[in-house]
Amino acid sequence: MFRLAHRLRQSSSCSTASTTLAGPLRRTNSVVRQASIRLASTAAARAPTFPCVDQHAARTARIQAATTSAASSTSDGGPEPPYARPTPKQYNLFTSTQPLALTYSSTPLPSHEVAYETWGTLNPARDNVILVHTGLSASSHAASNALNPAPGWWEKFIGPGKALDTDRFFIICANVLGGCYGSTGPSSVDATTEQPYATTFPVVSIFDMVRAQFALLDHLGVERLYASVGCSMGGMQSIAAGWMFPERVGRVVSVSGTARSGPASIAIRFAQRSVLMADPNWNNGFYYDGLPPHAGMKLARQIATITYRSGPEWEMRFGRRLRPVPSQQVVDPGRPRTPALCPDFLIETYLDHQGEEFCLKYDANSLIYVSKAMDLFDMSHSSLVELGMLDADSSTAKSESAKRQPQPHLSHHPPHLADLSRGLGARLARIPTLVLGVQSDVLFPVEQQRELADALRAAGNEEVTYYELGGVWGHDTFLLDVQNVGGAIRGFL
Amino acid sequence: MFRLAHRLRQSSSCSTASTTLAGPLRRTNSVVRQASIRLASTAAARAPTFPCVDQHAARTARIQAATTSAASSTSDGGPEPPYARPTPKQYNLFTSTQPLALTYSSTPLPSHEVAYETWGTLNPARDNVILVHTGLSASSHAASNALNPAPGWWEKFIGPGKALDTDRFFIICANVLGGCYGSTGPSSVDATTEQPYATTFPVVSIFDMVRAQFALLDHLGVERLYASVGCSMGGMQSIAAGWMFPERVGRVVSVSGTARSGPASIAIRFAQRSVLMADPNWNNGFYYDGLPPHAGMKLARQIATITYRSGPEWEMRFGRRLRPVPSQQVVDPGRPRTPALCPDFLIETYLDHQGEEFCLKYDANSLIYVSKAMDLFDMSHSSLVELGMLDADSSTAKSESAKRQPQPHLSHHPPHLADLSRGLGARLARIPTLVLGVQSDVLFPVEQQRELADALRAAGNEEVTYYELGGVWGHDTFLLDVQNVGGAIRGFL
Repeated sequence: MFRLAHRLRQSSSCSTASTTLAGPLRRTNSVVRQASIRLASTAAARAPTFPCVDQHAARTARIQAATTSAASSTSDGGPEPPYARPTPKQYNLFTSTQPLALTYSSTPLPSHEVAYETWGTLNPARDNVILVHTGLSASSHAASNALNPAPGWWEKFIGPGKALDTDRFFIICANVLGGCYGSTGPSSVDATTEQPYATTFPVVSIFDMVRAQFALLDHLGVERLYASVGCSMGGMQSIAAGWMFPERVGRVVSVSGTARSGPASIAIRFAQRSVLMADPNWNNGFYYDGLPPHAGMKLARQIATITYRSGPEWEMRFGRRLRPVPSQQVVDPGRPRTPALCPDFLIETYLDHQGEEFCLKYDANSLIYVSKAMDLFDMSHSSLVELGMLDADSSTAKSESAKRQPQPHLSHHPPHLADLSRGLGARLARIPTLVLGVQSDVLFPVEQQRELADALRAAGNEEVTYYELGGVWGHDTFLLDVQNVGGAIRGFL
Repeated sequence: MFRLAHRLRQSSSCSTASTTLAGPLRRTNSVVRQASIRLASTAAARAPTFPCVDQHAARTARIQAATTSAASSTSDGGPEPPYARPTPKQYNLFTSTQPLALTYSSTPLPSHEVAYETWGTLNPARDNVILVHTGLSASSHAASNALNPAPGWWEKFIGPGKALDTDRFFIICANVLGGCYGSTGPSSVDATTEQPYATTFPVVSIFDMVRAQFALLDHLGVERLYASVGCSMGGMQSIAAGWMFPERVGRVVSVSGTARSGPASIAIRFAQRSVLMADPNWNNGFYYDGLPPHAGMKLARQIATITYRSGPEWEMRFGRRLRPVPSQQVVDPGRPRTPALCPDFLIETYLDHQGEEFCLKYDANSLIYVSKAMDLFDMSHSSLVELGMLDADSSTAKSESAKRQPQPHLSHHPPHLADLSRGLGARLARIPTLVLGVQSDVLFPVEQQRELADALRAAGNEEVTYYELGGVWGHDTFLLDVQNVGGAIRGFL
């Protein structure tokens, strides 16, 4: 950490830095003058530098250089969005000119676009369609295809003979409303202003995302889904799809999802939004003609990454091991290495790397809007009534009948379970549903998986399949565990 | 969230903001001109503001105003440290002019100060002393006393007839080395430069903290502790004290501590340090003559707060309830309330409040140094050998004998358990030890508590008392649960 060179930061606070860093060089007239001179020299020689902090300024410089270079090479001269928005040729684009009703806004979205991709073949009866819903930051590119041969985020699960078997099914995956990979979101241009929406974009809900997807299904002439499948936030959408369109959904699969975001998950997402919004480059969301809040995005992703795996996995993978240090940087081979305040343990370099990789790949406002949509998701009866999606007295009969049945499967009874059961049960009591959760998941904890299965069962749904996986992969299990997650889905379908 | 007034932020990026915020006001010549004018007006009327972001600038202004006012009212004219450093009259101060050896530095600290407080009466035999070690941000003020009648952080546990019974024991609590509440730390003035150390302060270890505390005990003429007691990071110090000075410690109490920081805990503390160090006001640690990194501190504390309680507690306390909104701010009583991107759920306002309360109460560099000391703590044999605190072949005999004993208590066997057992066992095999953990703790997970108890038992310690508490208070249980935590300590002592 303590480098020999005395480097000043490239930031705007340079002048302050130079004033204060000069401190250790001052001489003192006290009685300890001799010692002081020796120690002060040592301090000056060891003026601290922080590569992990300097990284933010270095990234700024890189973005600015790339923007300048792009501006001089493109015909319109405008800066390119710095995150890797896929080119329109890599996905299909559905443009709807029908107003899209929104949960939290009295004004519908006048028009919207949905980026989507497909795999397999739509059969003549049009009844072999599986809609795959994505997690927070995923694009429509779930697997490689003719438009885009790069591996997708669920490559191991979609294909001939795989869990979502393309020999049998026609798979559709769309980028969510609010996202930045082709579908309409805060980075899209508002036709009325010819400027990106930024934070004038309306708050969207999981229901809005599903509504946009079903507008796409209408466009494709798909009346009914064989199944709605989703993991993480995709699980929320999958549940919502079955609930909103029970006559159009044959089966529901929710892997590491939830029917009701709890305060612990909201807390984790709030912390991410807070660090992002505190980045001065965020600029209240209006950064599209300048620097994006890349430092805030990196910090937010570091926090998020903590919740994607698990302590036991890091213990096995990293333990307490330190990053390797080149031998010429070892000051004294006989002594323990001086710890760095910047990343030093492998777990730290891992989080740093994950943040660095992500910070320019996704739009900051999309992160804020989509993570907020997750927080807002609640299929409880009281919440659905408040949103005007259910009548206050709906499903009372069902709920009463459910009460009379013995409930051998119920594993616990949080206070909100009855409310949730009544909400879900209003429309999901008859759709076969697979609920799969992971015990090491800290973001969508296993209690929420049990809760979802219990709520459906208590509502009288007799076709709930429930699996709980062990292992150390935490929330990311749905991306990694082909054997167990893939097997459960294949078996259920 | 969307306020009627169009307010620009007070930050340095104002000019960018005004450029981009003007965007929605632009008119367009497209065919949708009519609609555009209507919607553009709506957008202008709804130009978004973010009170949670503006808070950072407002805090800056408050600090600057307070600093100016303090400068004009004090004789030396220098700005006061903005966090609430207690006045020297509120604690006792021990100044050591003996060099203090440091784990990670070949140069000892030439002198240091330790702030401490006491409760009860030292008996003539001087054998009734209990040393209380603090958690990360606590001062020496564990309970009210003559110097400072304000309630302390462990008020309910220290006093006549309480868990630490002042009718029986003489209690000492010191601010840790590296802290900012009177003991020497990064905010202290380096005598050789007459400037605060800032990040020229050496990296300190839990062992260094304990060494400073035992220098205090020497000063007070206390040869032997009846018990060493600590919670959280205090548990680490308590274990280290027994290990470093086995002949001077009668009993060890570790509540929600650990003998080895795991990667998940390091990850959480790394995320906090990262957001703090990214605050431009942190300025590589040299902020003592300017603004402290208060925004970074707030964000760091928000992250920390997530790990102090538990999901089940927030579910009971906050659930999904929203902050109350004054009726005049409700735009349309017939519609669901428009969600805010700033804190809106009670769990969010709670985290925001905790961050706001803390951000000027503790020194940012102390947070970095003390949290790093926690990360570095590892009582494994291999680690202690690397630090030169144990010979490579130490305790082999003990370890071998331990292997031959049946181990009926061992609940699990992480790969590092044998290493940890060998390290701890080298010097802690004969000291009665109370290990208390909490099942809902996510920061010092219960697995680490079991590990500590198991490692001691495997090393042949036959006087290990181990309790595991339920409940929803998570890591904070040690501050709240007088009945169970207090009872266990009283019973053990």
